[in-house]
Amino acid sequence: MRVVNFSAGPAVIPEVVLQQAAAEMLDWHGSGMSVMEMSHRGKEFISIAAKAEADLRALLAIPANYKLLFLQGGAIGENAIVPMNLLAGRTVADYVNTGEWSKKSIKEAKKYCTVSIAASAEDKGFTYVPTQERWKLTPGAAYVHVCTNETIGGVEYQWTPDTGDVPLVADMSSHLLSRAVDVSKFGIIYGGAQKNAGSAGLTLVIVRDDLLDRALPITPSAFHWKAQAEAESMVNTPATYAIYIAGLVFQWLLAQGGVAAIERVNIAKAALLYDYLDQTPFYRSVVRKEDRSRMNVPFKLRDESLDEAFLKGANEQGMVQLKGHRSVGGMRASIYNAMPIEGVRRLVDYMKDFERRHG
Amino acid sequence: MRVVNFSAGPAVIPEVVLQQAAAEMLDWHGSGMSVMEMSHRGKEFISIAAKAEADLRALLAIPANYKLLFLQGGAIGENAIVPMNLLAGRTVADYVNTGEWSKKSIKEAKKYCTVSIAASAEDKGFTYVPTQERWKLTPGAAYVHVCTNETIGGVEYQWTPDTGDVPLVADMSSHLLSRAVDVSKFGIIYGGAQKNAGSAGLTLVIVRDDLLDRALPITPSAFHWKAQAEAESMVNTPATYAIYIAGLVFQWLLAQGGVAAIERVNIAKAALLYDYLDQTPFYRSVVRKEDRSRMNVPFKLRDESLDEAFLKGANEQGMVQLKGHRSVGGMRASIYNAMPIEGVRRLVDYMKDFERRHG
Repeated sequence: MRVVNFSAGPAVIPEVVLQQAAAEMLDWHGSGMSVMEMSHRGKEFISIAAKAEADLRALLAIPANYKLLFLQGGAIGENAIVPMNLLAGRTVADYVNTGEWSKKSIKEAKKYCTVSIAASAEDKGFTYVPTQERWKLTPGAAYVHVCTNETIGGVEYQWTPDTGDVPLVADMSSHLLSRAVDVSKFGIIYGGAQKNAGSAGLTLVIVRDDLLDRALPITPSAFHWKAQAEAESMVNTPATYAIYIAGLVFQWLLAQGGVAAIERVNIAKAALLYDYLDQTPFYRSVVRKEDRSRMNVPFKLRDESLDEAFLKGANEQGMVQLKGHRSVGGMRASIYNAMPIEGVRRLVDYMKDFERRHG
Repeated sequence: MRVVNFSAGPAVIPEVVLQQAAAEMLDWHGSGMSVMEMSHRGKEFISIAAKAEADLRALLAIPANYKLLFLQGGAIGENAIVPMNLLAGRTVADYVNTGEWSKKSIKEAKKYCTVSIAASAEDKGFTYVPTQERWKLTPGAAYVHVCTNETIGGVEYQWTPDTGDVPLVADMSSHLLSRAVDVSKFGIIYGGAQKNAGSAGLTLVIVRDDLLDRALPITPSAFHWKAQAEAESMVNTPATYAIYIAGLVFQWLLAQGGVAAIERVNIAKAALLYDYLDQTPFYRSVVRKEDRSRMNVPFKLRDESLDEAFLKGANEQGMVQLKGHRSVGGMRASIYNAMPIEGVRRLVDYMKDFERRHG
């Protein structure tokens, strides 16, 4: 029996993807090998990686002047790799602080440059996205960094910042591929794959090609965007199986109608949950309405002494990983692309039932 | 039909491991989830990682004062991460140059320190390991780095260097777990998992705990050994599925009788191939006898115009990935732990037959 998995990541993967991966585990397309056993330089794996890249480019409409890299180290690795690759000749970078993931990025960047906080939502417990009128950008900054969806706080940009000539860098780990995005507005987009693109251990990096020449000399070759772009992400052996799984997820997403289609489903899923949260005093969402994340929905029971009973009851009905992050408490439902709307309905039904019994 | 896969890495994986992975793909042990879908902080994955760690510790008899880390970035990533983590207060590191992988390590280290070449086998085309009497160690060096098995050149240390109080650092990517090793003689042992420990995207790092306090301030958190040791390798989301596969490989290895038992098989496999190479003028091995790798066996046909026919014929019999690395040419048979002795016999039989037909 498959559970309904609300994990914030690694997270639920489309069942058809897992079925195909299982069926092909010992012999991929008559090659006589598992994908895990393939030389990354062999024609079989090259074809897998090429198709994954082409499909992701199609899904996100990535312009031709952007490179797509399949790297390792996750978003936390990339938090250091971003300044390493962008700071040549500059000493300051601007960061917008919208929560836990922004803070991690800032902590890493301070190892390599002066970080200027362009705006912060700390004054209200990271429950909103500061509008751009309130940002203080630094003239001559190397880049402006944002986390466009805060997985822990459940705060999401519903708009695209405009930083003019200064490259906009976005950690999109937890909402990449969940909504349409105009890649051309960004200098760099990066994210871990374990939310909407398969399994952990793969980092997706999209780099505008004029930004490939700004790396500090201390940048490791394995994380040097220009070197990796020139080597088709094979400076080091890439995470081959994770790329294969990501490719299967991309194929699934195309079969759903692409990003525009899944975005409509995601809007409906989030509305189901937030509409209910807004009409009952039993639960509450603390995030400002216009900045609520469609992917990660933190909520609290008014009576926190019922938290344990809530989680236990959900578990008994096969709904798992609803406990909120330890830094904020309460509950969190992560409802990524692969979470069907039926899963959200079951959660809302359970929440209503729980309210009836305990309200 | 499964092929006989001589790939240098990613490489053949025990069939029982792949069968178990396929069977558990949609539901691991009744959890209702794929291992890929599990939160890395959930009890299910924690148990998988803990068992993998305990089994690897048992297999290599890792002493209690060594930490075992599951990281990302591969050996080429670690080539930069090693100096970052060991150079605080020192400016020179010694490197022994035995071939392509040593050269990659040296190239990375030069970004962070002065590299002193303690010894080099370049004078004879990297066909041997310089004996320790010929090493020139630098007083006050931060560490001494060796690559104990050169995957491309097919050169392997059959002895353990003694560097006294200076930490010995070894890239063991392509022979880790293939032979007994006295971990206590090393400061650091590292390697990519895609040879003898499963799939690509996972880096195994074994660190003596007194070496955890030597990191440069520029070390990224995701690659900071001390931070990762304190966080049980979860500073960032680890490569969960690759850890699971590695764990299955470790279980398989224990079932074979452990490292001592597989080492006996590996000795027999290598002997089959080298004995034949030594008794025919049709093929040749260029590596000095006492330094030949048991894992990677490069060889050449005397008449290189037959290379293509040799590879084609092997392919037709289901033996793949025998082409030598582009930097050295010829052939290479990688015969890691998961290559059964029958696979090597089939190769030798084919080589004999090919010689008969073309000799």
